Amino acid sequence: MIINNQKFRTIWPSDDTAAGSRCVSIIDQTKLPHAFKIVKVTNMSQMVVAIKTMQVRGAPLIGAAAAYGIALAMQDNCSDEYLYLSAKQLIQTRPTAVNLRWAVERMTKMLSPLATELRMQAAWTEAAKVCDEDVLLNQAIGQHGLSLIESLHTSIKYDRQFNILTHCNAGWLATVDFGTALAPIYAAHDAGINVHVWVDETRPRNQGASLTAWELGKHGVPHTVVSDNAGGHLMQQGQVDMVIVGADRVTSSGDVCNKIGTYLKALAAFDNHIPFYAAVPSPTIDWTMLNGVQEIEIEERDGHEVAWMIGVLATGEVAEVNILPANTRVANPSFDVTPARLVTGIITEQGVYAPSQLKSILE
Amino acid sequence: MIINNQKFRTIWPSDDTAAGSRCVSIIDQTKLPHAFKIVKVTNMSQMVVAIKTMQVRGAPLIGAAAAYGIALAMQDNCSDEYLYLSAKQLIQTRPTAVNLRWAVERMTKMLSPLATELRMQAAWTEAAKVCDEDVLLNQAIGQHGLSLIESLHTSIKYDRQFNILTHCNAGWLATVDFGTALAPIYAAHDAGINVHVWVDETRPRNQGASLTAWELGKHGVPHTVVSDNAGGHLMQQGQVDMVIVGADRVTSSGDVCNKIGTYLKALAAFDNHIPFYAAVPSPTIDWTMLNGVQEIEIEERDGHEVAWMIGVLATGEVAEVNILPANTRVANPSFDVTPARLVTGIITEQGVYAPSQLKSILE
Repeated sequence: MIINNQKFRTIWPSDDTAAGSRCVSIIDQTKLPHAFKIVKVTNMSQMVVAIKTMQVRGAPLIGAAAAYGIALAMQDNCSDEYLYLSAKQLIQTRPTAVNLRWAVERMTKMLSPLATELRMQAAWTEAAKVCDEDVLLNQAIGQHGLSLIESLHTSIKYDRQFNILTHCNAGWLATVDFGTALAPIYAAHDAGINVHVWVDETRPRNQGASLTAWELGKHGVPHTVVSDNAGGHLMQQGQVDMVIVGADRVTSSGDVCNKIGTYLKALAAFDNHIPFYAAVPSPTIDWTMLNGVQEIEIEERDGHEVAWMIGVLATGEVAEVNILPANTRVANPSFDVTPARLVTGIITEQGVYAPSQLKSILE
Repeated sequence: MIINNQKFRTIWPSDDTAAGSRCVSIIDQTKLPHAFKIVKVTNMSQMVVAIKTMQVRGAPLIGAAAAYGIALAMQDNCSDEYLYLSAKQLIQTRPTAVNLRWAVERMTKMLSPLATELRMQAAWTEAAKVCDEDVLLNQAIGQHGLSLIESLHTSIKYDRQFNILTHCNAGWLATVDFGTALAPIYAAHDAGINVHVWVDETRPRNQGASLTAWELGKHGVPHTVVSDNAGGHLMQQGQVDMVIVGADRVTSSGDVCNKIGTYLKALAAFDNHIPFYAAVPSPTIDWTMLNGVQEIEIEERDGHEVAWMIGVLATGEVAEVNILPANTRVANPSFDVTPARLVTGIITEQGVYAPSQLKSILE
């Protein structure tokens, strides 16, 4: 991703010059779109906080951040004890995304047989590999998704705009680079297809309004922000040609766990015969799970996220306002599960699969 | 409705002591829940502004406000010309709600045959009648809805809480008193049924978070605010027993036009076998329309409503913040249409009707 003429990933190793050691740089996503701020994470505990507070978020990026969290841990204390403690603390930061556990288990599995003195260097190398692999997976998702968009676009009036609706942020900012749901959109835009994106605001944290709108804007992809309530109406009125979302976990049967509200858009797409796709790298598929609605633990986040909204005042100053009457009770489930019967296909780095065919990836 | 130990309607005639004439008092709903402010509307043009800016909103209340708008007009100028000009200006304030046109046409039909010198008094009397009738209709809706809740409540485990989800505000504040969708809920609560209300935030104007939560709180009805995205998940998890919404227009076939996002909740209710009801006084039924999705004009409101959020700062001061990146394009369709096939029934002052039976009201 190019931001202000400079190439960026969302996470990268750098030097903590003060401490004379290595650290991890991240873009603080809680500050976007109002400020583009890079933060240095210098130890494992700070990485736990960065994931919990969503300075880094998005299933693939959380995986990469957790891998670097292990590297930071090994820099401080390369004992078995600290390795397992760190793994546990990192896994507990967010319960829903499967990539987090996948990345941490990959790190511990690789590190635990090694002599302790080799662990620090090996951890940095492996975390970098997790990141590089994510980039390659997302580029491949982009290419498979591009073919899909090309074929759907030719099936409608070719000269008109092709409208894609997306929910939350599964873009560059949710991954190390390129994005999952947005990778095909960037690829299609770059290939000269006249794509336009309906961006769901994505309450309560507004990742659509703040992050997706921001990164699409930086890349020059035409887009329009709508409230989460608007998608059904837009679909009824023929203004949506395709839905692409990311996912925090996909079951082996093709159930899609993604940001709260995704299920409602899938219902509306199904009701209006609009193709609904989830774009995920294969590590997001949880082969151990069949029934997502019954089995996936849904994170309940703090009610503060519903009650308070961050934005800029007319003066340009960032401020947070409470939109509720005093002492109002709030619930904040953060994900939902879209049953496979509503999903047209899963776009992965290996190709596009109908939910019922997903298992063929393993063959 | 009792607010701070005082009985209130949302609109009432009062005296403009400065001008020595009558005026209309309204609760300024754009200030809620952060301030309870009463505003005096002294002429027809001010009423046009009050409706457009949503100081008064909700289909039944807009009808009452427009009726009083005609009375204010007749106080200033009781000519035919001004009567028709006022009617036209009032009808144009909001395109979607049917009550607005209904109330204005009722007023003009009654006034136009009268001698001009009789019009002012007759208009004030008729507007008061529109209001009193609305109150009676809503009380009757409450009683029919109460019977429905009682029968649904006995069909679930009777000792547990009965969970009703509502979208937007179709409460006391949307009507002259009692509300439409909330009238059955108030009646059930007052009858000792253990009801709990899931309140959809209702972006972009947050009428759920700001108005429904506020009035349920004042009445002591247990409730929890959730983002608009959460309802599908709550339904999947068995946490919703019934959905009741209001409507701005219901077609003779039972299509329900209501605040944007209602259609998504109806889809989720249908998918999870949860009864979905719209509660409306019969003037909200547009007997001239059959296909709501194709025929109802959907108001497109200013994008400012999506971009900016009003709330209180931690200091207690009311402020508005912009949540979007600079120069982001926004769309803001304000209503959607839920096809009759997703609607279990319409609760009216005359009883509860399946959409296919709605026409029997006319018999």
